Amino acid sequence: MSDAREDAKLLDTINGPEDLKNFSIAQLERIAEEIRDRIVEVMPVNGGHFGSGLGIADLTVALHRVFDFKRDQFVLDVSHQCYPHKMLTGRNELYDNIRIKGGPAGYTRPAESPYDWWLWAHAGSSISTALGLARGNRDRDSYAVAIIGDASIPTGMSMEALNHWADLENERLIVILNDNDMSIAPTVGGLSRHLKAIKREAHDRGAIADGNGANADLGHFWSAFGHRYVGPVDGHDMAGMVALFERLKAEGRGAFVHVKTVKGKGHIEAEKDQWKWHAVSPAKKSGPKKLEFARVGKVPYTDIFAEAVIERARRDPEVEAITAAMPCGTGLRAFAPEFPDRFYDTGIAEQHAVGFAAGLAKAGKKVICAIYSTFMQRAYDQLFQEIALNDQPVVLCMDRGGIVGPDGVTHNGTFDIAYTRSLPRINIMAPADGSELRDMINMALDLGRPCVIRYPRTAAPEPEKEYPRNRALELGRADLLREGRDGAVLAYGSMVYPAMEAAEILARRGIELTVWNARFVRPLDLEMLRHALDEHPIVFTVEENSLNGGFGSACLEAAALNRLGADKILPIGLPDSFVEHGDRAEMLEEHRLDPASLANRFAEEIAGLEGRPSRGVRQAEAY
Amino acid sequence: MSDAREDAKLLDTINGPEDLKNFSIAQLERIAEEIRDRIVEVMPVNGGHFGSGLGIADLTVALHRVFDFKRDQFVLDVSHQCYPHKMLTGRNELYDNIRIKGGPAGYTRPAESPYDWWLWAHAGSSISTALGLARGNRDRDSYAVAIIGDASIPTGMSMEALNHWADLENERLIVILNDNDMSIAPTVGGLSRHLKAIKREAHDRGAIADGNGANADLGHFWSAFGHRYVGPVDGHDMAGMVALFERLKAEGRGAFVHVKTVKGKGHIEAEKDQWKWHAVSPAKKSGPKKLEFARVGKVPYTDIFAEAVIERARRDPEVEAITAAMPCGTGLRAFAPEFPDRFYDTGIAEQHAVGFAAGLAKAGKKVICAIYSTFMQRAYDQLFQEIALNDQPVVLCMDRGGIVGPDGVTHNGTFDIAYTRSLPRINIMAPADGSELRDMINMALDLGRPCVIRYPRTAAPEPEKEYPRNRALELGRADLLREGRDGAVLAYGSMVYPAMEAAEILARRGIELTVWNARFVRPLDLEMLRHALDEHPIVFTVEENSLNGGFGSACLEAAALNRLGADKILPIGLPDSFVEHGDRAEMLEEHRLDPASLANRFAEEIAGLEGRPSRGVRQAEAY
Repeated sequence: MSDAREDAKLLDTINGPEDLKNFSIAQLERIAEEIRDRIVEVMPVNGGHFGSGLGIADLTVALHRVFDFKRDQFVLDVSHQCYPHKMLTGRNELYDNIRIKGGPAGYTRPAESPYDWWLWAHAGSSISTALGLARGNRDRDSYAVAIIGDASIPTGMSMEALNHWADLENERLIVILNDNDMSIAPTVGGLSRHLKAIKREAHDRGAIADGNGANADLGHFWSAFGHRYVGPVDGHDMAGMVALFERLKAEGRGAFVHVKTVKGKGHIEAEKDQWKWHAVSPAKKSGPKKLEFARVGKVPYTDIFAEAVIERARRDPEVEAITAAMPCGTGLRAFAPEFPDRFYDTGIAEQHAVGFAAGLAKAGKKVICAIYSTFMQRAYDQLFQEIALNDQPVVLCMDRGGIVGPDGVTHNGTFDIAYTRSLPRINIMAPADGSELRDMINMALDLGRPCVIRYPRTAAPEPEKEYPRNRALELGRADLLREGRDGAVLAYGSMVYPAMEAAEILARRGIELTVWNARFVRPLDLEMLRHALDEHPIVFTVEENSLNGGFGSACLEAAALNRLGADKILPIGLPDSFVEHGDRAEMLEEHRLDPASLANRFAEEIAGLEGRPSRGVRQAEAY
Repeated sequence: MSDAREDAKLLDTINGPEDLKNFSIAQLERIAEEIRDRIVEVMPVNGGHFGSGLGIADLTVALHRVFDFKRDQFVLDVSHQCYPHKMLTGRNELYDNIRIKGGPAGYTRPAESPYDWWLWAHAGSSISTALGLARGNRDRDSYAVAIIGDASIPTGMSMEALNHWADLENERLIVILNDNDMSIAPTVGGLSRHLKAIKREAHDRGAIADGNGANADLGHFWSAFGHRYVGPVDGHDMAGMVALFERLKAEGRGAFVHVKTVKGKGHIEAEKDQWKWHAVSPAKKSGPKKLEFARVGKVPYTDIFAEAVIERARRDPEVEAITAAMPCGTGLRAFAPEFPDRFYDTGIAEQHAVGFAAGLAKAGKKVICAIYSTFMQRAYDQLFQEIALNDQPVVLCMDRGGIVGPDGVTHNGTFDIAYTRSLPRINIMAPADGSELRDMINMALDLGRPCVIRYPRTAAPEPEKEYPRNRALELGRADLLREGRDGAVLAYGSMVYPAMEAAEILARRGIELTVWNARFVRPLDLEMLRHALDEHPIVFTVEENSLNGGFGSACLEAAALNRLGADKILPIGLPDSFVEHGDRAEMLEEHRLDPASLANRFAEEIAGLEGRPSRGVRQAEAY
C-alpha cells in the first residue's frame, strides 16, 4: 500500500495534523504503517502500551484528516491508546522518550499539547466529558469526538452518559466505539458477547459496513438508548473511514459509530496473543537499579497475595475471589484456573464488583475483592453502603497502594488511607513484608468483618531478611521492632522497612530510635501511641499516602482526643498534590521517603529539639 | 373486588407472609387494597414515601405469595418502597410508628426483620447484591429477587451488574423492573423513553402481557445484555403475576421481568400528581419544635442556594446548573423554567453528572453541580480525576452536609469533609449563614478553580439575626467573630451559630471564648490557627462531620506540620459511626452539638485545664 517512490518517511514530514490534508488515501495508509513501525521500534525499549496503539493508528489518522482537533475536541477514553495521536500532533520526535522522565507521558496531557484535552487514565470518562464539551460549545461550530474501547463502554459512568446523551441528542458529538474484543484481558460480560454477535451478523451479510447505514438495524441496543447507530465500520479501511467522517461532520449532528479494529494490528505476535502484547516491558537498563531499601527482594507483593489466596482457597472451600478486569495485575490470573467456579472478573466495574462481593459475603462466602487502590475510588460509595453500613466481611485487597512508578498521577494509590478511614467500621491494615501480608489475608478472612489490606506495587523484602516480629499478628495491635530514647517512629505498611533502615543508619551516628510497625490504621493501637508519646521527645509517623487524613492524621486525632500530647507528633508522608511519574524508588527519594532521606529528616528534627523544653512551649517565633 | 362477607381486615390476620398461601386471588387483591388504605391513613400523619408504596402493593403481595423470603432473598433497590413488605412481614401493627424514633425505619433494615436483607437507600445496588446472593447460594435451593425502579436502573452500578450477570446467567436470580415512569421527578434519559415505547407498543398489540412470552421481542435491549426478557407485565393484575412467578420459580433460572405499575395507585390525587405525592410531610406536631439554635430562621439553605444561583444566572449567561435526579431537593426546580437551556437533570447518575460538569467547565461554562453530600460519594473518583486532576472549575454544591434528620444512616452527609479533603486542589468551604452561602456561590463562580460548598439540611439563621462579619469573604481567610481569653473555638459551617450561642451562654457564666468562623477547610487559614493556639489555653474545633479526617483533623495536621502546638486542639464533631434517624435538632443534641451541650463541653474542658501547665505536660495517668 505504501508509496514506493519515496524512501523518506512521510511521518517525518508532518508537523501537525493539518499536514494530513495534503495526502492521498494511499499516503494516509502509509502514514498509519509508519506510526505502527514507530510503536514497534520504540515501545520494547521504553516500555508501555503496545497493541492498542497499533490497532488504532488508521482510525487516528482518519480522524485527524477530517477534524481539526484544536477547535474540535478529541477525547480519548483512558488515553493509553494515544501514541498515534501524539505522533501526529507535533510529538513524533519526542516519541523516542515516551514514558521516560522528561519525555511525553503515556497518556494525554493538556500541558503537553493543545491537542490533548484531558489528563486521565481511569476508564469510562470520555462520553460524559465529550458530551459536556459538545454542549458547552454549542454556540461554536465545533465537534466533540470521543473514542472509547469495548472494555470501557460497560463502565457505569459510560452507561450513565449514554442515557443522558439522549436528552441532548442534537449536540455535535460523535462517540466512536473502538471494538477490538479486548480489555487488558479478553473482555467479559453480556455486552461483549452482543458486540461479537453484531460483528458476526454483519460479516455474514457481506463485507463489514463502511458506515453507509445498511446495518443500522444491528444497533438496536444503542438506538434503545436513543442514539443513531452507524456500523460496524472496518477500522483499517482508510478510504471508508475518511468518507464516513466527512459525511458525519457535514451532517452536524450526533452519532454512535461502531468501529471494528484489530488489537496489535500489523504485528504478527501481538495480533496472535493480544493479552500478552497489551503492554511491553522496557529493555533492561544498564547499571544497578536504585533500590527502595536494602532488604528489598525480588518477589512482588502481588505474587505473594495470589499465592496466599490460592493456598487458603485450597484449604477453605468458601473462599472466592473477584477482580474488576485486572486478573493479571492483581495476580488472580493464577487463582482462576484452579478455582474457575470461585473466580469472578466483573470487567471494569468496581462499583458492581464491591456490591457483588457484599452479596457473596452475605450468602456466607469468604470474599477476596482485589482492586487497585486508585480504582477502588470508583467504589467509595459501595464501601460506604454495601460494605461498612451493612457490615459485610469482604476482604478488600488494594494493590498499588502508594507510588506506582511510571504510570504516575492517574494511577498512584496515595489517597486510600484517607478515604477508607473516613468511613466507619472498616478495619484498615497494611503489611510490612510478605509474611505479614500472608498473615493479614488469613486473619481478615477469619475475622468476619470488613477489612482493607493495602500493599505497594513493588517487591516484598527478601524472606530471609525479614525483621523478626515481637508480636504475632493480632487485630489492632502494633509490633515494637526496636527501642531507642531519641525519638519514636510509627511506620505504616511499605514504610516500615525504610524506617527501620533509617533507624539503623542513625544508630551508627549515635541516635537511637524506637520503631513501631503500626500494622493498623483502624483499630489504631493506642498502646503504641501512648508508649511513643510517653517515652520519647518526638514521634514521627511515616506513610506512603497523602498526609491529608492519612495515618499520621489518625495518630494526631487519637492523641488529641485521648490527651496524649499531640504536639510531639510530626507526620511524614506525601504532600497535598499529585505525585508525578518516574521510577518508584526515584519518586520515593524525591519525596524523601527513602531510608537515607528519612534518616536525615529524623536527625534534623531531633537536633532541632535541643534547647527546647521536651514538650516544647514555643516561646517566640524567632526561637 | 374485596370479599364483602367480612368486615374485619384480612391484613390484620396476617402474622407472616406464609399466611398468604391460604388466600384466594380475590382475597390477595383485597389485602393489597388494605395495604394501600394503611399507607393513605398513616403516612400523612408520620410523613414519608407515598406513591411508591401504593404502586407496589400488588406486586409485593404476589411475590410474598409465591416465594419464601426467609430462604429466598428479597432485595429492594433504595427500599423506600418497602412499606407493603413491612406490613406483610410481621410489622403491620408497628407500621403506625413508621419513621418515628423507636418505630420501624422507612427503609429495609436487617436488624428489624429476617425478611429485610439490606440496609440502604442509595439507588442501584440491588442487582449487584442480589446476583451475589444468588451466586453465593448456588448450592441451596433458593431464589434471589431484586426489585428496581425505572429511575434506578440506569445508574452506572445497575448497568455494570446487568453486564456481569450475563456471565452468571444460570443463577436463580429474578430482576423485576418496577416501571412507573417516575423518579422522584419524572424520569429522564434515553432508557426512560425506550421503556415508554415498549409499553406503548405492547399496548397497541393488545392487552399488556401477562408474561407469557408473547412480547419477548420487545425486550431486545435487555436481551442484548444477555438476559431473558419477560414483559411488560401488568403490575396490578394479581392473578397474572402469581401465575407468572410460579412459572418462573418452577423453571429455576434467571429472568428480567418488566412490570408496569402506577405510582400512587388507588389514590386519585397521587395518581394525578405523582411528583408531588412521591412523599408526604408529617402532620404538624403539637408543642414548640426544638430549635437547633436560637437564631435559626425559616428559609432553608436549599432555597437560598437556588435564589443565589438564579440571581447570578440572570446577570451571567455562562452559568449553567446540573442536578442528578434531585431538581426539587436541590432547589434547582426553580432554576429550570427560567433557564431551560442551561439546566440539566442527568437522572440518578452522579458519576456522569460530575464528568459532564467537567466537560461544560472546560468549554468555558460556569458550572454549578448540586448533589447531596451523601450521593456525591458516588462520584468520588470523578472528583479525583475529572475535577481535581484536571483542575476544572466546577462549583460542587453539597446540600444535606451533616445530619439530615429522619432519613438517617443512609442519607447523612457526615463524611464529605474527609473525602473531599483527601483529594488535592479542591477548595472546600461552608457558610455560617445565608448571606455567606450567597457570597460563597458567587466567589466560587468567579474563582475559576474547583470548589466544594457544603450546607446543611435546615433553615439558615434569620437574616436580621445574622452575626455581623469582621472580614469580607476572601479565599482562605477565616472571620474572627468574638474574642475571649479562656479558650478559642474554630467553628465550621453549620456549627458557627451554635458555637457563638454557646460562647454567649458561657459569657453569662464568666467564661470568655474566642470564636472564629473558619469558612474554609482548604485553604485553611493559618493565621486563624496561629492566633487561636498562641493566645488561648485550649482550642476547640467544631464540625458537623465525622472526626475521622474532618475539619479538626485538618487543624491538627496544620498545627503539627507548622509546629504550632497541636496538643491544645480538641476536635469536637461526630463519632466514627453511623448517625441514626431522628429529628435533626434532637440528633444534634444527642451528639452534643447543640449550643447548650457545646457550652457545657467547653466549660468542662476549660475547668479541666486548671492546675495543668498551660501547654500541659501530662504528669501521670492519675493526674
